[in-house]
Amino acid sequence: MKQTDISTKMILDRWNSLLKTGDGLVDTLSDENLQKEIAVGKNRGIYVLGHLIAVHDAMLPLLDLGKIQYPELEIPFLKSADKVIADLPSAAQLKSLWKKQSAHLSATFNAMNSDAWFEKHTAVSAEDFAKEPHRNKLNILLTRSTHLAYHQGQLVLLKQTL
Amino acid sequence: MKQTDISTKMILDRWNSLLKTGDGLVDTLSDENLQKEIAVGKNRGIYVLGHLIAVHDAMLPLLDLGKIQYPELEIPFLKSADKVIADLPSAAQLKSLWKKQSAHLSATFNAMNSDAWFEKHTAVSAEDFAKEPHRNKLNILLTRSTHLAYHQGQLVLLKQTL
Repeated sequence: MKQTDISTKMILDRWNSLLKTGDGLVDTLSDENLQKEIAVGKNRGIYVLGHLIAVHDAMLPLLDLGKIQYPELEIPFLKSADKVIADLPSAAQLKSLWKKQSAHLSATFNAMNSDAWFEKHTAVSAEDFAKEPHRNKLNILLTRSTHLAYHQGQLVLLKQTL
Repeated sequence: MKQTDISTKMILDRWNSLLKTGDGLVDTLSDENLQKEIAVGKNRGIYVLGHLIAVHDAMLPLLDLGKIQYPELEIPFLKSADKVIADLPSAAQLKSLWKKQSAHLSATFNAMNSDAWFEKHTAVSAEDFAKEPHRNKLNILLTRSTHLAYHQGQLVLLKQTL
């Protein structure tokens, strides 16, 4: 096994594992729970979930895998803080989008080989990439993995304690 | 730049960035804040901070970098849930340990080269490692990075809103 294949497997495994945890959270958290603030005065579950879907959607053009699928999520969940936009999708709608997106991203990413992951992402110029070869697609997957873990640490707090 | 060096840089950069965020959090959160529950009925800040220090301490033997430094943290922060052990170090003591440990881990990890990171960690046998070469030291750094991000997403909730 080439060492680049090893790195790709490590980071892809990590991403897939976090995505699976996300699937489990979406199954566990009720629509009512997701409407609650995670801590007093902080973001609601629904906002964090919509934010994650919007951030993951934006990975598609960054990884040169096509256009974003849910442009309607950009204003409420990327450009605006929670509680600024009153008209949000329902928790049930967001949970359904998460599931659909999670399956799509897993299938698409798992089909990419190591060489593809080490290519430049679309937000870096060829000139800069020649000097900074770590600004590749795998790095996008890595940074989005720690971003996902960060917000999962928050969503899990909405689980009801027995 | 070799692709293995690129992978090492990516994951090490991610770890160092999260560690720096942790340093900032430790500076921002007051001792009083850290004594609070992150959300109603959930872990206190002090427990999460102690847990992170204990988990990072356990990386040393896993990475073949020597013994753990703070064996006294194992029972309260790894083996026990929050609020089970009454006698914990103070928030000020834990903040001081975090800072000391963070500087030590950064310096030690930054001095390791890529070949060292792709070696097996100490919890996998040579036989298993031959079949599963992703069970290397860099993977420990990667999994601990998402673990750190997860708990930082929680600690940040203790910041006081203006």
